[in-house]
Amino acid sequence: MSNSSSHHLEYAIRTIGQLPGIGRKSALRIALFLLKNKSTVLPDLLEGLHGIRDGIRHCTKCHNLADGEICAICTDHTRQQNTICVVESERDVMAIEETGQYHGMYHVLGGVISPIEGIGPKDLHIDSLTERISTGGVDEIIMAISPTIEGESTIFYLSRLLKSWPVNVSIIARGVSFGGELEYADGLTLGRSIVARTQLVVTENA
Amino acid sequence: MSNSSSHHLEYAIRTIGQLPGIGRKSALRIALFLLKNKSTVLPDLLEGLHGIRDGIRHCTKCHNLADGEICAICTDHTRQQNTICVVESERDVMAIEETGQYHGMYHVLGGVISPIEGIGPKDLHIDSLTERISTGGVDEIIMAISPTIEGESTIFYLSRLLKSWPVNVSIIARGVSFGGELEYADGLTLGRSIVARTQLVVTENA
Repeated sequence: MSNSSSHHLEYAIRTIGQLPGIGRKSALRIALFLLKNKSTVLPDLLEGLHGIRDGIRHCTKCHNLADGEICAICTDHTRQQNTICVVESERDVMAIEETGQYHGMYHVLGGVISPIEGIGPKDLHIDSLTERISTGGVDEIIMAISPTIEGESTIFYLSRLLKSWPVNVSIIARGVSFGGELEYADGLTLGRSIVARTQLVVTENA
Repeated sequence: MSNSSSHHLEYAIRTIGQLPGIGRKSALRIALFLLKNKSTVLPDLLEGLHGIRDGIRHCTKCHNLADGEICAICTDHTRQQNTICVVESERDVMAIEETGQYHGMYHVLGGVISPIEGIGPKDLHIDSLTERISTGGVDEIIMAISPTIEGESTIFYLSRLLKSWPVNVSIIARGVSFGGELEYADGLTLGRSIVARTQLVVTENA
């Protein structure tokens, strides 16, 4: 059904509507906005999309997104080189970077072990992780993997694998969310947060 | 601030985030989606955007969006040629077409008279409307213009202007919305809907 009297516009609306979170109404709004801003926003957007198409690669060291052979984090010598944070995807790197609380290196697995989806250890960037560790200089591996069944299996697999190397293996803290209400926390998280309780430190000034 | 370790990605997120209704989080999600679907969705999207840039024109007759010199509605000879619906924008044409209730022609003014924004009759496609009427064959002009202060002024201006031509000038019905509750209708609309009440026709089968 074409309501717009322009097939070009209809086609554009259809392609914009394929993007996640964008329905037909939003797609129409965006298409008309771009038509109106044909010489300002549209060229910038096209350049941005060409960048996605042609410019983005994967870091050969940590498998994070990169503009060149090696990503900006791996080439940043001000970061702690002896700590590697193992994550599932590039998106997790961004989420952790956004916190500003971590200043070490990363290693992107590209997924988690999932027998149901047919993803085994060989399908993940695990060999390149052990290779990085075996070249030396790595003191700690932090597992920042989602606490799902597949995530837990992956953590278990990696922790057994890494036993043979002289590195500390740690896992990010799990527990109730800051600002969340206890009564709404799921039972598993709440139960584990009690078992894994930490000593409360009261300072003089508190 | 670059959190993504790829300037190309950061730039893409920034340009996608300029679109209406899309924040940084949605832009990131869309950029990663396009990166993942580099060879399927992305080429289609680029083609769609090139269509907006190069393919869409304005109909020289009714000023609606068109792929060629004349739009699909103006070239459709199955439509009622003697009725012209006057609207503010191309979007209104789409909205009316979507109802499936109108089968005549259109004329897009390109705005409404607004002294505050410095938009006078000369800035709108009014000359081309009177030109269409003066060439003959037009029996009715339907004003489908928003009932705002500017819209009402535009309707008043046009109705005075069109007095000198032998055409019927009508205005789309205003009143309470179908499905809307009376108590939530604004006073002006409700008041006018009482003044402009129509005779209730009871058929035998009702």
